[in-house]
Amino acid sequence: MGVLGARGKVGQAICAGVEAAADLELVAQVDKDDALDAFTAAGAEVVVDFTHPDVVMPNLKWLVENGFHAVVGTTGFDAERLEQVKGWLAAKPEVGVLIAPNFAIGAVLSMRFAEQAARFFDSVEVIELHHPNKADAPSGTAFRTAGLIAAAREKAGVGRSPDATSQELEGARGADVDGVRVHSVRLAGLVAHQEVLFGTQGETLTIRHDSLDRTSFVPGVLLGVRKTPLRPGLTVGIDPLLDL
Amino acid sequence: MGVLGARGKVGQAICAGVEAAADLELVAQVDKDDALDAFTAAGAEVVVDFTHPDVVMPNLKWLVENGFHAVVGTTGFDAERLEQVKGWLAAKPEVGVLIAPNFAIGAVLSMRFAEQAARFFDSVEVIELHHPNKADAPSGTAFRTAGLIAAAREKAGVGRSPDATSQELEGARGADVDGVRVHSVRLAGLVAHQEVLFGTQGETLTIRHDSLDRTSFVPGVLLGVRKTPLRPGLTVGIDPLLDL
Amino acid sequence: MGVLGARGKVGQAICAGVEAAADLELVAQVDKDDALDAFTAAGAEVVVDFTHPDVVMPNLKWLVENGFHAVVGTTGFDAERLEQVKGWLAAKPEVGVLIAPNFAIGAVLSMRFAEQAARFFDSVEVIELHHPNKADAPSGTAFRTAGLIAAAREKAGVGRSPDATSQELEGARGADVDGVRVHSVRLAGLVAHQEVLFGTQGETLTIRHDSLDRTSFVPGVLLGVRKTPLRPGLTVGIDPLLDL
Amino acid sequence: MGVLGARGKVGQAICAGVEAAADLELVAQVDKDDALDAFTAAGAEVVVDFTHPDVVMPNLKWLVENGFHAVVGTTGFDAERLEQVKGWLAAKPEVGVLIAPNFAIGAVLSMRFAEQAARFFDSVEVIELHHPNKADAPSGTAFRTAGLIAAAREKAGVGRSPDATSQELEGARGADVDGVRVHSVRLAGLVAHQEVLFGTQGETLTIRHDSLDRTSFVPGVLLGVRKTPLRPGLTVGIDPLLDL
Repeated sequence: MGVLGARGKVGQAICAGVEAAADLELVAQVDKDDALDAFTAAGAEVVVDFTHPDVVMPNLKWLVENGFHAVVGTTGFDAERLEQVKGWLAAKPEVGVLIAPNFAIGAVLSMRFAEQAARFFDSVEVIELHHPNKADAPSGTAFRTAGLIAAAREKAGVGRSPDATSQELEGARGADVDGVRVHSVRLAGLVAHQEVLFGTQGETLTIRHDSLDRTSFVPGVLLGVRKTPLRPGLTVGIDPLLDL
Repeated sequence: MGVLGARGKVGQAICAGVEAAADLELVAQVDKDDALDAFTAAGAEVVVDFTHPDVVMPNLKWLVENGFHAVVGTTGFDAERLEQVKGWLAAKPEVGVLIAPNFAIGAVLSMRFAEQAARFFDSVEVIELHHPNKADAPSGTAFRTAGLIAAAREKAGVGRSPDATSQELEGARGADVDGVRVHSVRLAGLVAHQEVLFGTQGETLTIRHDSLDRTSFVPGVLLGVRKTPLRPGLTVGIDPLLDL
Repeated sequence: MGVLGARGKVGQAICAGVEAAADLELVAQVDKDDALDAFTAAGAEVVVDFTHPDVVMPNLKWLVENGFHAVVGTTGFDAERLEQVKGWLAAKPEVGVLIAPNFAIGAVLSMRFAEQAARFFDSVEVIELHHPNKADAPSGTAFRTAGLIAAAREKAGVGRSPDATSQELEGARGADVDGVRVHSVRLAGLVAHQEVLFGTQGETLTIRHDSLDRTSFVPGVLLGVRKTPLRPGLTVGIDPLLDL
Repeated sequence: MGVLGARGKVGQAICAGVEAAADLELVAQVDKDDALDAFTAAGAEVVVDFTHPDVVMPNLKWLVENGFHAVVGTTGFDAERLEQVKGWLAAKPEVGVLIAPNFAIGAVLSMRFAEQAARFFDSVEVIELHHPNKADAPSGTAFRTAGLIAAAREKAGVGRSPDATSQELEGARGADVDGVRVHSVRLAGLVAHQEVLFGTQGETLTIRHDSLDRTSFVPGVLLGVRKTPLRPGLTVGIDPLLDL
């Protein structure tokens, strides 16, 4: 397999991950200024792309047209871009492309489990905890998690979490995301963490995800490299690869 | 619906739970010395049985033969007893019976999630924490959880959790249950708690279940009351009712 | 020792605690309608009072005048009442009276530790978690904890916790108590819990207190019974008894 | 101030920390092959030494003799070495030297709090969690923490934690360190973490320390730089600097 964007921080972590995996072989590392046909020369089957929204579209077009499966972590894919990718794939039905906004398996699983558990508990709240340099509160992941929980509860006809608060100091009860309370902690020393708390009579269930360093996407990328050749066409998000 | 064993601690908690549920009506409370046909007189559809292994079999036979759906939390059901129940049900194909060893939804979900997550992480360990009067270590739930995790990992071809320990004070690394390390904490003030910790490069996922009082079975029993009439035949464990 | 208010829920728990303690003997249980001189007849040395603000003052006056040490958990003591008690004690300099708003040793220690740790960390936030029937958010304990932390940081010249949030969904970052962010979670199944999180470069320190049932005051009351006879005069709060 | 061993990983982190501190100025960075009198030329007052046991003694001798205060994180100080340092300091009574095995303030505070809380709870256990490449179990810090707790309990006449375990799978209840149970978790993704759990009737207190990256010693070193000039003579460990 090959890596596009191999000399960036993320690319380097992926290259190190591939080297450490017994079943994968890294045959080509390409970065800007390098020619894409290095992948052809090296006989790569799958190419990982962590580059930049400005360059990812021509790269990806070339990869698909030349028959490479692609695992893409570059951001910036909106509906229009996804349609374009589908167009290219229509002409190459044997090629698989995976485009995912989040490769951290633990993060994806915790969202999935939260969604599954949502309708069985009277109460649910989300606490996300990050380093103090983060600009947005709540985090995008917490927003998405709360949205999934809210949708699952609505579908099952479960009402809002009970709450008798009648006297609140402004902000104490957190933000309201589709009816789910979300609390954002900002603390020096932390990286990226999230807890989903469910409660019902006499018991609670907590699903906690901790990102402790910035290489937590590597196992998900390797999973993508292994599974994408088996999934022709476009796959969005790593969830379908988990076979849950 | 009706309750058999209605004056025991568990039975009282169930009766209170039913009274609090808007969609269920408690029409008959029966305990030893009371006649079972109180259920007939009251027009019950479903009967909950939390009695004693010594009396549950004739009770259950009567309930099935008289066309009541049954939700059974009484313990002591081995393979032989389950076969007997199936026999009674063969003659009453429209009746549903649910027999479950654990009605705490949070406990059941956390086992299920642990099983699903097991193959995606390099490492997994279990910590269970209980009050200090508990006789066995690890707890039965921790044993079962570790077994499910080990089986899921074996099926997926995942090896043992990495461990470079070369110098161990006896017992520090916990008990080995099918290759999964299990740690048992006993602490005054606790009730029944369990954490399953998964880890891979740069991230961890923790699934924690806390039983804070002894009525945590009530929501699962109510779920059984609602769903069992829709499931003719024998159901063992509440997992199938969760539609995960 | 004796108990005043012995037939209330709290009083019963205290009586049970004393019975279980090898070094203490319960000689008199008094409730409304009983005469106070039962304590004299029984030869009590210390009397515990968990009664009602309406009756505690005459009770306590009688106890002091008759030479009993007193451990008081009844609420409603303002500055004026405390002055009155001091007046009675002036005439009985050998008598000790302990009046405390919170007898849970873990709660008191966690506040103390939070106060001590406050000036060593860049960041601090408080999360308190309670059952959903609670009317006020944040809890009184969280308010007091945040206040103690803020005062300790100000005294040491430590500034506010760093926070780059520029885009906040209203309430996400919690309530501001003297510059310390406090988050209030309300969840079915919970009792009363609090976490104080401190963070600095590369490390965090968390002090967590869990009240799992409503008898957590008992060990603190017993400590009061043992120590108050050694502390003539008025003691407010159990902190001084902890000899930290 | 100056740094000795400035080009090592630790030294670089300290230099970065000093540069970021408004009240400290970094005037000299020295490593092997550089002459020590760079500190004199630069007018340093305090010198931080994170070098190697083989070279620290002559370095430190030179620093004391030339009137520099020293903050030393280099390991390998036994009783004999400490006596030698005291000898040098006898001739330079105005000089302060701090030698500490652990500069992580959170770790030191959590040990201190654990020691203070130890005698107030019926039960105590320690869980330490580390990356799976660690050779020893329990960790040195957990050993030391358990020892401090055990000593505090013995001094206060508190017996062992209650434990009714009669049926144990070998290792489940952890290692026994001076009568305190210690559990060692090894998990990919983790760095270095420790929880001390205390429990008594109806409540628990948990003191948790998380090291999330390897620069958590920096704030403690800066504290040493600020405080050591005010403490002539030898100080061992940062505890005395915390003024608890």
